[in-house]
Amino acid sequence: MIKPTLPQGTRDFPPQTLRKRQYVLQTIREVFERSGFQPLETPAMENLDTLLGKYGEEGDKLIFRILNNGLDNPGKHDQAMAGFHQVLEGQNSRAVTERALRYDLTIPFARFVAMNHGQLSFPFKRYQMQPVWRADKPQKGRYREFWQCDADVVGSPSLLYEAELSEIYLEAFRRLGIAVQIRINHRHILAALAEACGGGRLTDITAAIDKLDKVGLEKVMEELARKGFDDAQCSIIRQYLSIEGDNEEKLTATAALLGTHAKEGLTDLRWLLTFLRRPDGSDPLTIDLTLARGLDYYTGMIFEVKALEAVMGSIGGGGRYDDLTGLFGVPGIPGIGISFGVDRICDVIEEKGMFPPSIAAGPAVLFFHLGEAEARQAWQLLLALRQQGTACEMYPEAARFDKQFKYAERRHIPCVAFLGAEEIAEQTVRLKTLATGEQETLSRDAFLQRFARP
Amino acid sequence: MIKPTLPQGTRDFPPQTLRKRQYVLQTIREVFERSGFQPLETPAMENLDTLLGKYGEEGDKLIFRILNNGLDNPGKHDQAMAGFHQVLEGQNSRAVTERALRYDLTIPFARFVAMNHGQLSFPFKRYQMQPVWRADKPQKGRYREFWQCDADVVGSPSLLYEAELSEIYLEAFRRLGIAVQIRINHRHILAALAEACGGGRLTDITAAIDKLDKVGLEKVMEELARKGFDDAQCSIIRQYLSIEGDNEEKLTATAALLGTHAKEGLTDLRWLLTFLRRPDGSDPLTIDLTLARGLDYYTGMIFEVKALEAVMGSIGGGGRYDDLTGLFGVPGIPGIGISFGVDRICDVIEEKGMFPPSIAAGPAVLFFHLGEAEARQAWQLLLALRQQGTACEMYPEAARFDKQFKYAERRHIPCVAFLGAEEIAEQTVRLKTLATGEQETLSRDAFLQRFARP
Repeated sequence: MIKPTLPQGTRDFPPQTLRKRQYVLQTIREVFERSGFQPLETPAMENLDTLLGKYGEEGDKLIFRILNNGLDNPGKHDQAMAGFHQVLEGQNSRAVTERALRYDLTIPFARFVAMNHGQLSFPFKRYQMQPVWRADKPQKGRYREFWQCDADVVGSPSLLYEAELSEIYLEAFRRLGIAVQIRINHRHILAALAEACGGGRLTDITAAIDKLDKVGLEKVMEELARKGFDDAQCSIIRQYLSIEGDNEEKLTATAALLGTHAKEGLTDLRWLLTFLRRPDGSDPLTIDLTLARGLDYYTGMIFEVKALEAVMGSIGGGGRYDDLTGLFGVPGIPGIGISFGVDRICDVIEEKGMFPPSIAAGPAVLFFHLGEAEARQAWQLLLALRQQGTACEMYPEAARFDKQFKYAERRHIPCVAFLGAEEIAEQTVRLKTLATGEQETLSRDAFLQRFARP
Repeated sequence: MIKPTLPQGTRDFPPQTLRKRQYVLQTIREVFERSGFQPLETPAMENLDTLLGKYGEEGDKLIFRILNNGLDNPGKHDQAMAGFHQVLEGQNSRAVTERALRYDLTIPFARFVAMNHGQLSFPFKRYQMQPVWRADKPQKGRYREFWQCDADVVGSPSLLYEAELSEIYLEAFRRLGIAVQIRINHRHILAALAEACGGGRLTDITAAIDKLDKVGLEKVMEELARKGFDDAQCSIIRQYLSIEGDNEEKLTATAALLGTHAKEGLTDLRWLLTFLRRPDGSDPLTIDLTLARGLDYYTGMIFEVKALEAVMGSIGGGGRYDDLTGLFGVPGIPGIGISFGVDRICDVIEEKGMFPPSIAAGPAVLFFHLGEAEARQAWQLLLALRQQGTACEMYPEAARFDKQFKYAERRHIPCVAFLGAEEIAEQTVRLKTLATGEQETLSRDAFLQRFARP
């Protein structure tokens, strides 16, 4: 008998841990729902063809593929064997694996919209909270199964949705008690920077800038030089990355440096800032010109959320895309999406001790088991208590009191109820509050009343 | 470009469908929580070794296995190729596939308890609501990804948990508005029947009886005769399966037919019926001596739930097991579990048109977009409305009214709000209720008040 284990990089979620994730997801869900977003779920499995080629070459390698069933059918041996040779060469073979596990929520959503665009009413606002799987090397804070939580709007180019999703970030993190900085930039501004450098090398520039946070300005400049950017080009990029100040100052300096190329991006940013400006004149968003976002499909505004009081990478991000469903043959559906980093958000709240205490609370009452006849009486009261919405349970056997008390303690049950011969004769209940040791004898009605919801 | 599809037997859950499942799961969840059960989630992937051999030979074939990543590592080619030969022969190979998708929630739970029994406080009451995957041939009502919803208590042999789980079934189906018959039997009674037939052929007997509902008594008797049961044995089984009457009559007839062998099972059944008997003397459970339940690990009471007003197989089932964690090297932890058939429950409620209308409801208000300046004013009111918990949204652009009305209609949004130049000047809102066509002009406070929660 081998001691059972979990696959590397996966986790069980025992009650206390699960309740924390549920609290985070429920808080975000309420914000989504109040903003008119609707839930969607897609299957854990997608056709491998749906996923391949969407996450870059490195991404493709991290997709968990599912072995076809029925491979032991002798009629298909040759085909399967040929297919497996392809797999060994790093290719894919439908004869061996046709399906794979969801790698993110964006591509399945695009696939869903492409398949159902005739039935959907646009703009279509959906949120999705589901696990995804990646064959990354497991390490602290990086798992092979983890939860994503996304909201997207497709079918409208309106900047109103940039505003809407910004408000969602603000409200969700306010409710979760996490102080954040929401950083924004615009792909058109990065494109204008590439234009100013002679054009055509946007990806090299964004790839280098994307590392700024981790490696610092000098290393970024070294990488660019190594990639063949000349002194004049490097000088423009350095000036760009060195722009400082408040939002207004950044907009002005960028316009001065990049000129008309940047105009559209700057106009969008200015519109959003103005639209969201608070009555006291403050801006809830912060322009971050060094923000690039690695994903290729972003084409407009991009977002990133940093927790202010925690040493933690980004806890959210997103952006506008022009044509995600074009990948599936249905072009012309623009959209915008944001994502919440659920695991990291849980870590930040844990670090700050900000989970509500109710998460750890057990049922409200444990009925002691005082013998067969007594238990039968207590059971009726337990049912009445549950009927009014109070969580409660009964110890399963007439064990020693210390054993029953210990169970209440370990389950974080704050009160225990006794219905012994005396209480049954008098139609009462004895209630003990464990924290104080206080004991009271109550009528059954008063007992129910005590736990009734306010 | 290939039109995207979904893997066979899997489904997207668009908002309206998903909300139905969420309603069912949330209703059951509340019943679990009030009964002191705590949530658990386990990973979608388990080590293949954890799952193999637990579901019978047929079950093993239906497990979705995950291809190992990194098979294109040349150093491992020979090993992988040898492994793949094994796969083609119907065996398993860790060189090709080490992991697999969860096939049910019971075995992962047993694995969890075996891994964590030192940390858990027993009795441990958990519920689990997660999808499972099986490579069954897809057909109407049978999917390759479907949801299971289980509650189990491990670490106590007390019959109080038979009572607790019965009450959970009763309360959950009461809340869902589904009239059900909850049938019970006891493995010891089936074992007594096998004893009365000379002993040792319990599995043959239960396998035959399990088909009674589908094929009828005569076919069951034919199968038993074919399996070598002689006339005397068949006669006993036929008498057993023909026992009729109310619970009391069945208990009496079974005792008369099977004698002392059946005593323990009959005592348990009688205890449970008495414990649950309603003040009016009625029994919420029904003894069904023909109930067998296919699963081998049940050792005590067994349960099955049938919907009374729908043509539908079982919508729930479960039973007591002595030693599920023994499979993982940790013996001596008895338990009992029940399961809800989530898909079928949704089908029954759908068939009866019993889903609450709130499931289809969109946001409460759509703010019309009447131009840039107006939208900015309306946005502040929209935020205030959301702040008080009312779901609402704004049309994304100043489109023609008929377009904006149509959007409200398609989203099932009952009211639309106008903030035009006049309303802004007067600090009012015009509100139109779509169902009646009624229009009112309200102060902003009165508008907010209108949608405030009672």
